Amino acid sequence: MAIWEKTMRFLRNVWYAAAWAEQVGEQPIGRTIIEQPVALYRLANGTLVALVDVCPHRFAPLSEGKVIDDALECPYHGLRFGTNGSCVLNPHGPIAAKMNIRSYPVVERHGIVWIWLGRTTSPDQDAIPDLSFMDIVPGRKTVHNYHGTLDFRFDILIDNLLDLSHEDYLHRGNFSGGAGDPPELAVREECSMVVVERTARRMPQRPRYEYIGEHVDVKYVIRWWPNQVFAFERRYSNSDNPEGPSVTARFCHIGTPETEARTHYFHAVTREDRLDDLAVDENIAMISKDVIVGEDGSMLRAIDRRMLGAELMDLNPVILPTDVGGMRARAVMRRLLDYENDLEQ
Amino acid sequence: MAIWEKTMRFLRNVWYAAAWAEQVGEQPIGRTIIEQPVALYRLANGTLVALVDVCPHRFAPLSEGKVIDDALECPYHGLRFGTNGSCVLNPHGPIAAKMNIRSYPVVERHGIVWIWLGRTTSPDQDAIPDLSFMDIVPGRKTVHNYHGTLDFRFDILIDNLLDLSHEDYLHRGNFSGGAGDPPELAVREECSMVVVERTARRMPQRPRYEYIGEHVDVKYVIRWWPNQVFAFERRYSNSDNPEGPSVTARFCHIGTPETEARTHYFHAVTREDRLDDLAVDENIAMISKDVIVGEDGSMLRAIDRRMLGAELMDLNPVILPTDVGGMRARAVMRRLLDYENDLEQ
Amino acid sequence: MAIWEKTMRFLRNVWYAAAWAEQVGEQPIGRTIIEQPVALYRLANGTLVALVDVCPHRFAPLSEGKVIDDALECPYHGLRFGTNGSCVLNPHGPIAAKMNIRSYPVVERHGIVWIWLGRTTSPDQDAIPDLSFMDIVPGRKTVHNYHGTLDFRFDILIDNLLDLSHEDYLHRGNFSGGAGDPPELAVREECSMVVVERTARRMPQRPRYEYIGEHVDVKYVIRWWPNQVFAFERRYSNSDNPEGPSVTARFCHIGTPETEARTHYFHAVTREDRLDDLAVDENIAMISKDVIVGEDGSMLRAIDRRMLGAELMDLNPVILPTDVGGMRARAVMRRLLDYENDLEQ
Repeated sequence: MAIWEKTMRFLRNVWYAAAWAEQVGEQPIGRTIIEQPVALYRLANGTLVALVDVCPHRFAPLSEGKVIDDALECPYHGLRFGTNGSCVLNPHGPIAAKMNIRSYPVVERHGIVWIWLGRTTSPDQDAIPDLSFMDIVPGRKTVHNYHGTLDFRFDILIDNLLDLSHEDYLHRGNFSGGAGDPPELAVREECSMVVVERTARRMPQRPRYEYIGEHVDVKYVIRWWPNQVFAFERRYSNSDNPEGPSVTARFCHIGTPETEARTHYFHAVTREDRLDDLAVDENIAMISKDVIVGEDGSMLRAIDRRMLGAELMDLNPVILPTDVGGMRARAVMRRLLDYENDLEQ
Repeated sequence: MAIWEKTMRFLRNVWYAAAWAEQVGEQPIGRTIIEQPVALYRLANGTLVALVDVCPHRFAPLSEGKVIDDALECPYHGLRFGTNGSCVLNPHGPIAAKMNIRSYPVVERHGIVWIWLGRTTSPDQDAIPDLSFMDIVPGRKTVHNYHGTLDFRFDILIDNLLDLSHEDYLHRGNFSGGAGDPPELAVREECSMVVVERTARRMPQRPRYEYIGEHVDVKYVIRWWPNQVFAFERRYSNSDNPEGPSVTARFCHIGTPETEARTHYFHAVTREDRLDDLAVDENIAMISKDVIVGEDGSMLRAIDRRMLGAELMDLNPVILPTDVGGMRARAVMRRLLDYENDLEQ
Repeated sequence: MAIWEKTMRFLRNVWYAAAWAEQVGEQPIGRTIIEQPVALYRLANGTLVALVDVCPHRFAPLSEGKVIDDALECPYHGLRFGTNGSCVLNPHGPIAAKMNIRSYPVVERHGIVWIWLGRTTSPDQDAIPDLSFMDIVPGRKTVHNYHGTLDFRFDILIDNLLDLSHEDYLHRGNFSGGAGDPPELAVREECSMVVVERTARRMPQRPRYEYIGEHVDVKYVIRWWPNQVFAFERRYSNSDNPEGPSVTARFCHIGTPETEARTHYFHAVTREDRLDDLAVDENIAMISKDVIVGEDGSMLRAIDRRMLGAELMDLNPVILPTDVGGMRARAVMRRLLDYENDLEQ
């Protein structure tokens, strides 16, 4: 196992979101995921290819090379690698088995390029989270945001996104819930997926949705998967008339680990109205950046610095009732990591 | 003891200068002192508060929160902490003892906010250095400069400030002493304070002070305390007529350790003439920055890099007669650090 | 042995190129070579001086001091050191043997300032590589480029410069060889010097040299020395008429290690035509920067990052036939390093 294939506190045997589908074209891009450099590109027919982004000869970044006849040419000395990682051309001598490199299973689904960095060579695609609410269908639009890599370790995001009580403080002004009874929380686990249901009853009227009623029930269903995908469904309904008008929003956050220190941040919002209004798209992108990079990103960076690389639970933190979802997700992570570490023995 | 309370080669049981009095208001500020993040603010009545700048729940920086009803609200999830560190509000459930955080004794004196990060909870305020020459009294003015954190380890400053012979080289042009007999040095120790008296006799006339005489005696009295406070008194007098006219200047330097790599730098100059002339204030601030940041700061940074984190005495340095003050101060530091380390066992 | 004299994976007992001759004048400059800070300057008569760039008193950078009466004055407290490193003036007391510092043998030859950081005090100047093709003689001109320190470990340059097959890929557009039979390679070793001869036969016409013929033989002779000096001779001749017109270019690359992470890069090109045309000089400088800093520098930096500080051979790289020169040079390095390490025991 080469240095760049060593993993540390990351799960390997999951499908990681590597890019939005439209970020990967025929010109290769390089992205590091759980510390493994990956070159991603498409063949002319759209087929995705993912290769380790390190030439086996002198360790050049293949993602800076050209694709020629569907093969990726090393930008340093011209070795070429086919879509399965086999060396298909050595301009300087015979081809040897040692010149083959690793290719990774890669799948496009729900607008996302998913990559498998784990041990199995034929991983189960059913393990990809069901984000079909983001699929492109008539009457629906999804705005994709990629905020690059943010400056914190990925797991700090679990506590952030599975405990929305921080909205009233960190995001005060952006989408504070306002007064109301404390929300009800229910957490369940389904095959390593954690589902948090959070219902805030009799909240004040929501801007833009006054027609729903004077008091509104706000119900979130948040699904978290161990590949750090978070799918959100938020429903506003009339507190006094559950059968009355309601409105549902769906969006997702994804925090793919780049290294132990930095996290790729993907964010998408779907909608079913004003599809052609580009001002809505721009507004979503702007708020996404303000809130995720500006507010959460700054906070999580400050927290990361204070944790000095330690594990959360080793620091003996206060646990609040609102942490129930995050605690469950961290327990799942711990269980899966222990399992993977046992496999490595 | 949490990670952020661990100390290394710093003394803990001293009063550290955390800020100039006017730097701390009702809006909290965050400052790291001997590697411990601290949130500092004042109540409406002026009372100072110092709390550990880390929420016990998810380690958010409390200094970025709001003060509400004299309590500091965590900017992440809204826990509130009173002036003694007790959790006074948990919006998400019952309050538990584990939610209490550490508050630090904090005192305003001589225009400085002093903080106690040591073990004792009722430390002796008499241990604060007597800098009453900087107190605000009629007919006196003190200009405060804060140069942020400079890029060197705090103890390199000891050798710099207790051996003024570097003025003739590093500060040549700014306030070189010029020709004259070598200065006389006397060093004494008073309860962990080191006093260096340095007298240069029959120096040339001083600019602006020609009335003192053709030849001038320049006498410095420098007092150093183990919290890295350096108080200076400099007297010009007539070499041939000790009872004749003289003029005395008083100022102080303080190098509070932020981390092992960086040092907060405070500098103050008092005067008793031209109190209302703001151009004098500005000139003091400008020279302070030029000399301390530009000349000493660059030199100490270069030295710090060459020492590669080692202790001075472990590098077997040449000791000059002019180092007598610095050597004494370092011996006091060593003795006090050993004593504190014994206490920790 | 002080910290700054510790070496790691660098050879010590070689002459390193420290500067171009014209970079060293009467005002000292500081340069770090194999992690040892060095102060370099000239006496008024042109004699070169090299001293350790660390005062033995408080470790100030001597290269920031003044030269007074041929001695270098410490910019911090004024100790002065003669050209052999002896302390010649202590303004604060008597001179002691401990105040003497190390001076290094230093020689100007072939337009380069060579320094000896090794154990011997009278090293053999014949060990300096013969670069007399760069000497200043009537009818010849040499353009010197110094690209500062580039962001990769020095030894990665060996594989780059001793295997020119990368020209067809990394430098495609700049000086790709174009179609032709694969070059012939011959490697030989002469007393720790490695010579690579590389002949590409029947290449297409070369721009500016159409008069040579329709088909051109391109022969490189590259000499590498363990101080990371690479001398190049490149000859174009008529493939069908070996006795016909030909043209020869000579240039050199030098990669002096600064630290384990960065490398000083020197590049020189000689010519014997258009000596007075400054546009040629400027063009050489521009291409040198584009190719070395822009193309090779970026590539070697990316490779360095992927190697994570490991030794090349420990990463089990693919070896191509074109690597024969680099492999030989690395074997020489390994042998000499082992020999030096044995000496240190």
